[in-house]
Amino acid sequence: MATSSLFHPIEKELCTLERNLQAVAGTRHPILHAAAKHLFEAGGKRLRPALVLLVAKSTSEEQEVNPGQGRLAEITEIIHTASLVHDDVIDECETRRGERTVHNLFNTKIAVLAGDFLFAQSSWYLANVDNLEVVQIVSKVITDFAEGEIRQGLVHFDPGISINNYTEKSFYKTASLMAAGCKGAAMLSGSSFQMHNELYLYGKHMGLAFQIVDDILDITGSTESLGKPSGSDLMNGNLTSPILFALTQEDELNQLIQREFCDEKDLALALFLIKKSGGITKAKDLAKEHVQAALHCLQLLPKSAPASSLKELTHFIITRLS
Amino acid sequence: MATSSLFHPIEKELCTLERNLQAVAGTRHPILHAAAKHLFEAGGKRLRPALVLLVAKSTSEEQEVNPGQGRLAEITEIIHTASLVHDDVIDECETRRGERTVHNLFNTKIAVLAGDFLFAQSSWYLANVDNLEVVQIVSKVITDFAEGEIRQGLVHFDPGISINNYTEKSFYKTASLMAAGCKGAAMLSGSSFQMHNELYLYGKHMGLAFQIVDDILDITGSTESLGKPSGSDLMNGNLTSPILFALTQEDELNQLIQREFCDEKDLALALFLIKKSGGITKAKDLAKEHVQAALHCLQLLPKSAPASSLKELTHFIITRLS
Repeated sequence: MATSSLFHPIEKELCTLERNLQAVAGTRHPILHAAAKHLFEAGGKRLRPALVLLVAKSTSEEQEVNPGQGRLAEITEIIHTASLVHDDVIDECETRRGERTVHNLFNTKIAVLAGDFLFAQSSWYLANVDNLEVVQIVSKVITDFAEGEIRQGLVHFDPGISINNYTEKSFYKTASLMAAGCKGAAMLSGSSFQMHNELYLYGKHMGLAFQIVDDILDITGSTESLGKPSGSDLMNGNLTSPILFALTQEDELNQLIQREFCDEKDLALALFLIKKSGGITKAKDLAKEHVQAALHCLQLLPKSAPASSLKELTHFIITRLS
Repeated sequence: MATSSLFHPIEKELCTLERNLQAVAGTRHPILHAAAKHLFEAGGKRLRPALVLLVAKSTSEEQEVNPGQGRLAEITEIIHTASLVHDDVIDECETRRGERTVHNLFNTKIAVLAGDFLFAQSSWYLANVDNLEVVQIVSKVITDFAEGEIRQGLVHFDPGISINNYTEKSFYKTASLMAAGCKGAAMLSGSSFQMHNELYLYGKHMGLAFQIVDDILDITGSTESLGKPSGSDLMNGNLTSPILFALTQEDELNQLIQREFCDEKDLALALFLIKKSGGITKAKDLAKEHVQAALHCLQLLPKSAPASSLKELTHFIITRLS
């Protein structure tokens, strides 16, 4: 991945972050220790903390990250990881990022416990950032996650869902945390009210673009590059934008969804139809629109190395596809 | 139960609480709605909110409950319920309070989701109580829960645990929430620092006494009165104070624990040995000590009807045993 140069202005902070995340895992409970270590070592992209740290530097006059912002970066990664652990129980995933999931490697009990432990840790850290507004905006994310998980759980294999429904779900699942992280970082820099709101919108559009790209990769990627079988979303009944766009062109897809891809050739056929219909191009266009909207929100930022990295990182989201 | 007269000074507030808890359940997601309704209707004792409301009235000059305190009462019950839902997944309980558990009635996924949803709701409510100190003290409880669950999970069928280990686990599992609820209510009344600390200790001793009594009832109670089979804790490998006291008298118990009560007569024999050894009397004495310590912490409270109810409720904890 070419993110390393984009992360250059926050290299030192990302090292501290890694150390502190390891310390969260370094608990005195052997099983949980194994679970948490497994999670934090599984090579996450650290995209959420990187956004928080880059926004922190871009909005501070001294281009410094203060302790609250450093903690907020950790909190976003801990919340994200906690939600992945519980998601894996809910979706019964066997692998994630090419590694066996906690609930598969250990068991459901440990996965529930590990997720609860991480959520609890994030609440505790958050309360101690000592800024009530930041507590409020990040708490909202946790309710959005629950909302998103529930919505996703309730509309399995429903070809009637609209692109708007899809965007709402993606907001709850991904964009809400990035939006709150960016806004929180700006708040902790003491920047203006307008800046807070622009950075909230920035994080929201980044999150939506990122989710769309992830959904496209689920269809176009190989098992090797994804770390899980391609078409997993479809098989779980999670209908993402490429398939929703394709549905307007290919009637046959409807039948495949209705019968929940039960025939062994159904999934391959569905992936073929999605590619043929132009659904992927349309989804990519939608992601590009969100990238443009995100960049637009950064106009207020003064010129600086971290601000440039933030813009490049925003462009980079789409580059993952090529 | 004779709690109704004790709850007389907070009758109106408990009605509001019931309505608001129903509203939490009254979400637009049918499955979660069913799960949450099931939980809030299962006839919980509402002991935690009652403590918060009685402390609120006892510490306020006007003997009124302010909106933050009302919300805190709801938060304690929501956190408690969320932890029960996840505990049932972790312990694989089939029934709770005589009703089938969420994970048994629906499935593990819904139980994980419902618990996450309730934890999220409590975080959101908590952030909006608008008092950072209260956020901090209640967030600590959530980490204590995770800690407690993990400790309980790691020392199954371990006859070597001490009464101190047991008390620590009970603190994390039960007393921490009651302590934080009572202290939080006092904080929101604007009472003195000394009062906050006395009420924290009050809640802690109440919680410990309550847990010991619950553990005794698990051994002495009938399936009908408990709403679950008696001896459930033992069968789950959760060694509570009556058995720990009995272990010092009855060597045979040791063997039964080592073989995890695998013979069908083992559980009945263990229950018999615990009763014969005087373990129950010793556990009851320990609960009484905590009740006395709790009462001692209420000495600073000015005389009032709510303060009297609080004292009576404290005595009542032991009365459940006779």
